[in-house]
Amino acid sequence: MGQTLTEKILDNHLVDGELTPGEEIGIEIDQVLTQDTTGTLVWLQFEALDLDDVQTDLAAQYCDHQTYQFDFKNTDDHRFLRSAAGTFGAHFSRPGNGICHNVHKENFAAPGKTMLGSDSHTPTPGGLGELAIGAGGLDVAVAMGGGAYYIDMPEVVSVRLEGALPEWATAKDVILELLRRLSVKGGVGKVLEYTGPGVETLTVPERTTITNMGTELGATTSIFPSDHQTRDYLERLGRDDDFVEIGPDEDAEYDDEIVVDLADLEPLIATPSMPDSVVPVSDVAGTTVDQVMIGSCTNGGYEDILPAAKMLDGRTIEKKTEMIVAPGSKKASEMLARQGWTAELMAAGVNFSESTCGACIGIGHVPASDSVSLRTFNRNFEGRSGLEDDSVYLCSPEVAAAAAIKGEIIDPRTLAEELDDLEAPGVELPETYIESSDADLIAPDEAVDDELIKGPNIADVPLKDPLETAVGGEALLKMGDNVTTDHILPATQDVLMYRSNIPKLSEFTLSRIDETFSQRALEADGGVLVAGENYGQGSSREHAALCPMYLGIETVLAQSFARIHKANLFNFGIVPLEIDEDTYERIEQGDDIEIVDNAADAVRSGQEKFTIRVNGDWDASGHLDASEREREILAAGGKLSHTKMQHDEGGAAPADD
Amino acid sequence: MGQTLTEKILDNHLVDGELTPGEEIGIEIDQVLTQDTTGTLVWLQFEALDLDDVQTDLAAQYCDHQTYQFDFKNTDDHRFLRSAAGTFGAHFSRPGNGICHNVHKENFAAPGKTMLGSDSHTPTPGGLGELAIGAGGLDVAVAMGGGAYYIDMPEVVSVRLEGALPEWATAKDVILELLRRLSVKGGVGKVLEYTGPGVETLTVPERTTITNMGTELGATTSIFPSDHQTRDYLERLGRDDDFVEIGPDEDAEYDDEIVVDLADLEPLIATPSMPDSVVPVSDVAGTTVDQVMIGSCTNGGYEDILPAAKMLDGRTIEKKTEMIVAPGSKKASEMLARQGWTAELMAAGVNFSESTCGACIGIGHVPASDSVSLRTFNRNFEGRSGLEDDSVYLCSPEVAAAAAIKGEIIDPRTLAEELDDLEAPGVELPETYIESSDADLIAPDEAVDDELIKGPNIADVPLKDPLETAVGGEALLKMGDNVTTDHILPATQDVLMYRSNIPKLSEFTLSRIDETFSQRALEADGGVLVAGENYGQGSSREHAALCPMYLGIETVLAQSFARIHKANLFNFGIVPLEIDEDTYERIEQGDDIEIVDNAADAVRSGQEKFTIRVNGDWDASGHLDASEREREILAAGGKLSHTKMQHDEGGAAPADD
Repeated sequence: MGQTLTEKILDNHLVDGELTPGEEIGIEIDQVLTQDTTGTLVWLQFEALDLDDVQTDLAAQYCDHQTYQFDFKNTDDHRFLRSAAGTFGAHFSRPGNGICHNVHKENFAAPGKTMLGSDSHTPTPGGLGELAIGAGGLDVAVAMGGGAYYIDMPEVVSVRLEGALPEWATAKDVILELLRRLSVKGGVGKVLEYTGPGVETLTVPERTTITNMGTELGATTSIFPSDHQTRDYLERLGRDDDFVEIGPDEDAEYDDEIVVDLADLEPLIATPSMPDSVVPVSDVAGTTVDQVMIGSCTNGGYEDILPAAKMLDGRTIEKKTEMIVAPGSKKASEMLARQGWTAELMAAGVNFSESTCGACIGIGHVPASDSVSLRTFNRNFEGRSGLEDDSVYLCSPEVAAAAAIKGEIIDPRTLAEELDDLEAPGVELPETYIESSDADLIAPDEAVDDELIKGPNIADVPLKDPLETAVGGEALLKMGDNVTTDHILPATQDVLMYRSNIPKLSEFTLSRIDETFSQRALEADGGVLVAGENYGQGSSREHAALCPMYLGIETVLAQSFARIHKANLFNFGIVPLEIDEDTYERIEQGDDIEIVDNAADAVRSGQEKFTIRVNGDWDASGHLDASEREREILAAGGKLSHTKMQHDEGGAAPADD
Repeated sequence: MGQTLTEKILDNHLVDGELTPGEEIGIEIDQVLTQDTTGTLVWLQFEALDLDDVQTDLAAQYCDHQTYQFDFKNTDDHRFLRSAAGTFGAHFSRPGNGICHNVHKENFAAPGKTMLGSDSHTPTPGGLGELAIGAGGLDVAVAMGGGAYYIDMPEVVSVRLEGALPEWATAKDVILELLRRLSVKGGVGKVLEYTGPGVETLTVPERTTITNMGTELGATTSIFPSDHQTRDYLERLGRDDDFVEIGPDEDAEYDDEIVVDLADLEPLIATPSMPDSVVPVSDVAGTTVDQVMIGSCTNGGYEDILPAAKMLDGRTIEKKTEMIVAPGSKKASEMLARQGWTAELMAAGVNFSESTCGACIGIGHVPASDSVSLRTFNRNFEGRSGLEDDSVYLCSPEVAAAAAIKGEIIDPRTLAEELDDLEAPGVELPETYIESSDADLIAPDEAVDDELIKGPNIADVPLKDPLETAVGGEALLKMGDNVTTDHILPATQDVLMYRSNIPKLSEFTLSRIDETFSQRALEADGGVLVAGENYGQGSSREHAALCPMYLGIETVLAQSFARIHKANLFNFGIVPLEIDEDTYERIEQGDDIEIVDNAADAVRSGQEKFTIRVNGDWDASGHLDASEREREILAAGGKLSHTKMQHDEGGAAPADD
């Protein structure tokens, strides 16, 4: 039986398991990507591994979210990241050089490779036939240490493209159409593999708009075959050597198929406040627009801004509408400047920004209250723009430019009827892309620093010792059902500013339930948490396990655990034991808890039932539901300790290639 | 006897008093300027005057400090300012269109006119022979209402320029030399009028660098004659009609004269953390530079960035050094883009920003901790960059560019010796300046709004009751010399976002000197401030008086006051009393201060000497230096209360012209 493209790449990188949907597989990672809001912790974790160098073929650190450097902590972070890249052998992209996905696409993305990135839009290079997956920072750190990346084998779905896009319909409308049909949960547990005759009608920049925003479907990743379009794109970039042709076998079998006829598409728009609230632009025509923004990793490329620039050439935007263009990369920005388009955009009334993706997560150009913002971005979750009750629409650059000209939402086809000389700009790639300055993208062998530079807000990441034989302590906090990760560690700005300073960050642990908790935990030198059903529901944030670990929590006794948080507890060496309702009811806060079994041995040996002794007085049982790999990680003191141990033992030395 | 240029313009606009130094005069104002951090309050105050339209020939509202729109409150402010400009008949310059002084210079500044602006660098158009003065926002609001501007007639000092600048010395070095000689207090109570044969060697953009930074000398304003250079500049801008030739009479007599031989100048630099800590660049050569910024109202023009661009053309900046260019206006930015310089700067490794002055007051591109930043700005007060213990140097664009190339401070003449092909770029004006987009600078007759749009963070300004008979209270804080308005009320983003929310904003009052101050002041229900020399130097921000007023401060005892801040104290009903050094030394923080005189009567009656009783134990005297008009305002509880009172009584309707 033939293979899908996804299976081919996974097969080439498989180090553990079999390619059966739902089964856990381990794959080797070729490239890793980190950005400035997640990168500091990744590098601090990598530092804890005590390795001299990054073990993957390539690692690249980008500074793209906090480029405005509103706080010295941002600038300190950038300096630390530069020093980490230099010390450990990663490429370093300076603040202002562009968004990670855009710069990576231009410089490093390559067909057939695997990539892991600590950003949810990591799948972008799928447009070039690279299998790229977004992951938690710890997984990225482990991958940089040469460890395999473990994931449940996803289903592979064929998205079969027929026909070709008509005038004014764009790649953005392809992905908006998929969101309209499948919803933001439609891609969960799946890889979307683009197939069919429509594929070859799309250039690589169009493909990356689609793969980028596949994240909004919840997909594990999205991927296009590498073909003549890929070769063409890489040639224009002067990167011919990176081209390999790779695609599915003709007789590949997919788990499912979705058919999209490109010829049927029209300009679409996601209405507030979910990327799948998609309607034809004409449905919301006439809505007054206060702000238009073109940029982001989805539609911030040269090829995205150019159509808008052509539409605005010789025109002036509406006075009531602000328009900001934030290029996705300095390469794009410099080309637009060199060709005169930047000057024309400015003349039209556009505020031309440095390259940044900040506005997409509410860093800069926050909309005015009670206003409408049209953005070429990928997400419009309520409040994400920085304004709590915002009203953000997502659309193509063409729809955005039309709105800026008109001052209200308008189907660009209608605008073209109103204005005699407005033609559909189409897609145009430059003859050749310019080379990036080597001061903006600093190669490992030209690194500025050879040691880490930590500002006052950057602290070492603690490493946990292997699981002890005796586990337990005081029941420091007894909680109810449905405690979320927002309760365990709030994600508000005043808390998150300490994300690279675990000792400081830990002070906020469970503070929303009990303000005295972190202090008590530190004083008790650790202990036990007790909770009801569904402990740890909500986001995947690792800090919700890392901070309790820092405070010395050894085990969590809960009636049930949320799936992702439970995985995070394993990763940070905390034993998650399921207890029954009676036990939950009987245990009081302050009780002395002792796991009677030799915990280290029991975890390793596969033991499921543990004896919990309370106040030395009565016994209950706790259930450990864990795979063999999870037990190894737990026994080692967490994933980082586990990886380090493997290196120290030389037992799982990273592949040397 | 002949007149100085200053006297001529004042004479033409005099509505009250005589031109005798130290005597209060009232002058008619032709133009007003407001920016986005001071403008909201100005327009709220103007609204309180209940007039239909601005009464001056011209008013212009700029958005330049908060252009990154870090918070929805910034964006709400910009929208409010647009609506105020539209409602009351002012020009509106959109965020991204540039810094007030640069845009005003390019579009409106005209020889022989008077201007009042709610920004301390308002004197910039003095480079075109306009008499422009920075004032508190309240004075600006009153001027917009047609009221005269009252000021003590300053001394007029001739700054006689001889010779011509040698290669690599620039206009920035002229003003740095004056700061080196005269200190940040050297211009207090003076107008610096540039004379002598060196004047005609300087283009208008060079002149405006000098007049702009005359503010750092504490000067009331600085002015150049309007001559062939002025005509030339206005012609290139397509504004020939605004030209009039105006200069001093040949037999004009000045109160003092300072001679500067331009030919003697060399590249200079202000070291941390005061603009008058000036040394030759060579004195600090070799200092590693982490960040270089070119921009600001002092050196952010086309003519300022061009020399740096020429120096960087074909070169790459040092990898360890970040370089950001933030053009002073979009006109400058668009011309640089149109001529290809923007692309070259990007290729050299520069992060090219939107037009903004934010970084100068710590909004964006805050330096990393323990790092060195070289900036072409006008101020380097400690902490102003947004980093508490910063290390900011001030210099010309040429010196800044040289540092970026070298990665350390270097005299550009030395660099020119090291590099074969580095030539002094000199000064070059464009053949013609491009026209601004009418979407970026919206004329009153094209206004978007005809009513005020207030976001949830824009509220009424608090009013003070008339002065009480008993004034005094606890000496809540004793400060040293040269306390700046940055100390009294920081202008950083986290603070300024509340500038239209006085109760919240007041929490930050003097927090950089004593974090407990505002809480103590509130609890004490008001009291007294004690300071040394030059209290309130720095910016014109009226919040530095308004917030102490809100906290209940009734009087400030200081050895001397900075001019604009003293005017602000009157305007907000706080009694500024000068004390001698002995008294300053004897008073301790926590002392009980009582003004023995019946304050309300004494202020009204013209009494100058006030008896200060300390702890009911010993007496000292304080001197109130105030005009009859200032006394009326003070007694009324501040200018807004006073103006409202006048309007309510129908006694002082604004002039109708």
